[in-house]
Amino acid sequence: MVKTIELVNGKVRMLDQSRLPLEVRYIDCTDYKMVAEGIKKLWIRGAPAIGIAAAMGVAIGAQEIKAKDFEEFSKGLEPIFSTIISTRPTAVNIEWAINRLKKLLISNKELRIEKLKALLIEEANNILAEDIEVNKAIGRFGAQFIKDGDTIITHCNAGSLATGGYGTATAPMRVAKEQGKKIRVFADETRPVLQGARLTAWELMQDGIDVTLITDNSAGALMKMGEINLAIVGTDRTAANGDVANKIGTYSLAVLCKEHSIPFYVAAPTSSIDFSISSGELIPIEERGSREVTHIWDCQIAPDGVKVKNLAFDVTPAKYVTGIITEKGVFSPEDLHKLKDMR
Amino acid sequence: MVKTIELVNGKVRMLDQSRLPLEVRYIDCTDYKMVAEGIKKLWIRGAPAIGIAAAMGVAIGAQEIKAKDFEEFSKGLEPIFSTIISTRPTAVNIEWAINRLKKLLISNKELRIEKLKALLIEEANNILAEDIEVNKAIGRFGAQFIKDGDTIITHCNAGSLATGGYGTATAPMRVAKEQGKKIRVFADETRPVLQGARLTAWELMQDGIDVTLITDNSAGALMKMGEINLAIVGTDRTAANGDVANKIGTYSLAVLCKEHSIPFYVAAPTSSIDFSISSGELIPIEERGSREVTHIWDCQIAPDGVKVKNLAFDVTPAKYVTGIITEKGVFSPEDLHKLKDMR
Repeated sequence: MVKTIELVNGKVRMLDQSRLPLEVRYIDCTDYKMVAEGIKKLWIRGAPAIGIAAAMGVAIGAQEIKAKDFEEFSKGLEPIFSTIISTRPTAVNIEWAINRLKKLLISNKELRIEKLKALLIEEANNILAEDIEVNKAIGRFGAQFIKDGDTIITHCNAGSLATGGYGTATAPMRVAKEQGKKIRVFADETRPVLQGARLTAWELMQDGIDVTLITDNSAGALMKMGEINLAIVGTDRTAANGDVANKIGTYSLAVLCKEHSIPFYVAAPTSSIDFSISSGELIPIEERGSREVTHIWDCQIAPDGVKVKNLAFDVTPAKYVTGIITEKGVFSPEDLHKLKDMR
Repeated sequence: MVKTIELVNGKVRMLDQSRLPLEVRYIDCTDYKMVAEGIKKLWIRGAPAIGIAAAMGVAIGAQEIKAKDFEEFSKGLEPIFSTIISTRPTAVNIEWAINRLKKLLISNKELRIEKLKALLIEEANNILAEDIEVNKAIGRFGAQFIKDGDTIITHCNAGSLATGGYGTATAPMRVAKEQGKKIRVFADETRPVLQGARLTAWELMQDGIDVTLITDNSAGALMKMGEINLAIVGTDRTAANGDVANKIGTYSLAVLCKEHSIPFYVAAPTSSIDFSISSGELIPIEERGSREVTHIWDCQIAPDGVKVKNLAFDVTPAKYVTGIITEKGVFSPEDLHKLKDMR
């Protein structure tokens, strides 16, 4: 399995995803500012992965602080927190990771500074390890829906590269393969940013999973030809009623699955389920700039000055979702509330 | 309206579509070999347009033949026919145009050679003019379905650039605009070859039609948001039962239209309706090479050696088609047989 991020000898080693798949380059971030740069420049992306990067950045940044007492140590941490939070201000996982470290420090404030520094390293590693465990559990729960010989379609990259490892949507595929099932995967290229072509295809090839790249608009034709048995996608945020916000194109894929009676599963760590939002209609949809559509890297593919509507995400209503695969089990959208009671 | 192709002073002037939208360059083809080169190198594409180019290529080629009698003239035409047919051997329109010229010659074989040469020029111009008339009639029949304030989605390029002018799917939009209706158009970019981004967006901008470029996988989300009222697409070949073969992604778009109760019309000159084929299931679907998907021009966007499935076309079953707009009127798929009787 590809390592997305890890702590090695006091440095944060991350796979530079901005160069994939043309170049596989690992970057050793030697201080927290370099970690922040990596998050900002998309060396690392994916909600769980950047949460882990944030925690590791704080942990290595903390080692450099010269402080006599907890107050001085806390003061030294402030610029580290603010630098890392400012990298991607809307990323929930960065704040979540930093709040977790802050709580840990406060409940251990009586300890020596050196001990606190060691605790931060330990906790960053815990966050990584827990993420992988969550994903493996999603994989075990999801693999029951994959039969020997199945062909699975996925969209965007909810894979190892978006997480500490193993991925969310890709985890059931990895477990199915470990179980000896013969599977094939169609990876939608996922315009405009092409995470499917650049990342999902690459990481599944690394793991020896039989992956075939297709354009987004081929999915319907392949379904009609009987070439697809199952869809598994990730999610950025799932509402309490089971509506799923994910990368643009997910909704179209779900409609196509319904039309062809193909089960449509969403792999969602419980951390991505937002019980404070009653319906997907309340999730704001980010629109991004036109250049992502009019250019691919430096290649211009559309007329100068053309108007563009570039929705980055869409919301798939719960009625299209067969099941939501979490690390605590699989829930139909209408049963998702049971998970709330389990938390 | 953009001129795709015309005969000017014994030369075939074509807009070089391979450079659009980055560069607007007209090429004057001075002999038939250069016309053949243009068809081969995709300076000109689109079924009706290359039929016209073929006729014009033959017409200018014929002018150079030194012949005393009809037999010598016919012999002189043979290499011209074969060179032009070999450019794109599966293009029905090239053969259709050449057969039309052959018939014309045979029924006028008693005329002087100079007169025959003039007839060929005249007939090539007729083919162009008839194509534009057909498209304008499609436009008039189609415009009745466009209401003031509508937003129309289209896929690929069934526009001026694919025809002698005016386009097929774009013709109702042009007529609606002439009728003073305020309309908006969403152009799907149409991966992998991006005819929507490169050609449709460009030609509608030239005509002052309000066009917005979107990725193919945005259509569903925009429909759910209530942003789209109507779909009009072209067709490469429509079967007798109303099944429609067209650029990959057309079928997905039709399914999305059905799910959102959006009318889905196909603009189809009667020449593209193949009554010899009873069902779309019998239309062979061309698969093309992987490079169209893994590269955009010279930019590589996918891993080395990745498997690709690149379906160039798909078939939309008649049940998804609201109406087929021809130059002889609009037919529901089940009424298409009435058109056969009209021919």
